[in-house]
Amino acid sequence: MKKNKRVGMLVDELTSNPSRLFESRHFCEKYDIAKSSLSEDIRLANEILYANGSGHIESISGVGGGIRFIPGISDEQISELQQNLIEMLSDRSRMLGGGFLYTSDIMFDGSLVHDMARIFAQQFAGRGADYIVTVETKGIALAAQTAFMLHLPLVVIRREARYSEGSTVSINYFSGSAERIQKMSIAKRAVKPGTRAVVIDDFMRGGGSLKGVVEILGEFEIEVVGMGVALGSLEPERKKVEDYTPIVIIDEIDEENKRITISANEALKSGE
Amino acid sequence: MKKNKRVGMLVDELTSNPSRLFESRHFCEKYDIAKSSLSEDIRLANEILYANGSGHIESISGVGGGIRFIPGISDEQISELQQNLIEMLSDRSRMLGGGFLYTSDIMFDGSLVHDMARIFAQQFAGRGADYIVTVETKGIALAAQTAFMLHLPLVVIRREARYSEGSTVSINYFSGSAERIQKMSIAKRAVKPGTRAVVIDDFMRGGGSLKGVVEILGEFEIEVVGMGVALGSLEPERKKVEDYTPIVIIDEIDEENKRITISANEALKSGE
Repeated sequence: MKKNKRVGMLVDELTSNPSRLFESRHFCEKYDIAKSSLSEDIRLANEILYANGSGHIESISGVGGGIRFIPGISDEQISELQQNLIEMLSDRSRMLGGGFLYTSDIMFDGSLVHDMARIFAQQFAGRGADYIVTVETKGIALAAQTAFMLHLPLVVIRREARYSEGSTVSINYFSGSAERIQKMSIAKRAVKPGTRAVVIDDFMRGGGSLKGVVEILGEFEIEVVGMGVALGSLEPERKKVEDYTPIVIIDEIDEENKRITISANEALKSGE
Repeated sequence: MKKNKRVGMLVDELTSNPSRLFESRHFCEKYDIAKSSLSEDIRLANEILYANGSGHIESISGVGGGIRFIPGISDEQISELQQNLIEMLSDRSRMLGGGFLYTSDIMFDGSLVHDMARIFAQQFAGRGADYIVTVETKGIALAAQTAFMLHLPLVVIRREARYSEGSTVSINYFSGSAERIQKMSIAKRAVKPGTRAVVIDDFMRGGGSLKGVVEILGEFEIEVVGMGVALGSLEPERKKVEDYTPIVIIDEIDEENKRITISANEALKSGE
């Protein structure tokens, strides 16, 4: 097989299986090449991925080692995504009153979700998480794509305990947005005690819902090692959780003058 | 830029944006090459994708034309996925009683969902759908991935009307599995009347829930042009909807002898 075909196949297979570790032998046998040729192919594949801002290939040597594709996103692509989101979210027809915006179309748009997930994969790859966790419903597509990119299982916390979840643990928490006590419920068999989770959600205002997630995971002694939300909010200044990562932020929803002000989270960029 | 780097970049960019039409000019300018060289690059990229069973590149000539990646999956990969699913689903510890199986881990496993979505993308690519539609919650990851692959918006039907959905249309329907009347609700601004939808869900037994989806979409004169479910069921023989496509099928859940029998839908394979 010719080198240019091999390298293209390598790029396709690795990027279709993000964060998954492949033994070098897998590719050497598939292409019938020596390890030294594979190393050269990997070098070129890395150049290709870097040029597209898609991420990079990590090589782990020794027993249990191999190669894997680590998804990423360039600063330029982050800015472009944020500008898109800002433009879409600033559309006054999204105003629902009471400080709510219609965002379901954005949270279920495959291309936007794909790029948002690349940001979270890049941010949280090194945290040693065992799961990605979200609360139903609007953050599921984003959390699922982030989980896929990090090759981690996704755990979806339900609002109500469902029969199809088997035995569950539930908590009550106070939601500031809904201004009432709400419930969340997690399947016992979905998680193992003493593990680590990254939490992904669509929106955070005061952080009541995310604090609920931290609490219910605490019931299993699961440590939250990262929190990412598509859309944050400047108000209220005091949040119920710390260290969350928004992609864009609602600065103000001025219902009287029908104006929505959204800004980018500049801290996402690596500055490279 | 060398040909082997260009082709790798082409494969990466096209597969990262499935079903999205790119003008040829985009690539000619990016790589600074003539259209004839691009045609050769596309030919090689197509060979690469075919060899991996990932899909193929479609070229559309004339005004408004361009190239796009059409995701696919080989018969061999379909069989492998089905065997994985059968093995996982046959595990007796999944039995919850009343003919229910615990499947949340499968429905939120990124790699399994990715491959199931490739099957549905291949099955439903030519149906002229304007949306992918699902009902919350367990089919959302699969529906989102299918929508991403077909470059279509995803519409998630909610169980309850939510304030954040704006004005909604709701219906009541009879769910055979739950043995009661249930509700579903769709945001008015999520859909346009007179369009077409492919419906994706995690599970179908009698088809009550999918019949509800067909009905609520009917309120907007939206035609359902395809229905895919991860897991079908042999019983009951008589379904409330026709023409649905399962990936695997529950033949029997024998609670007394603790045995689950699952089979593959052989009709998914192209036979090529």
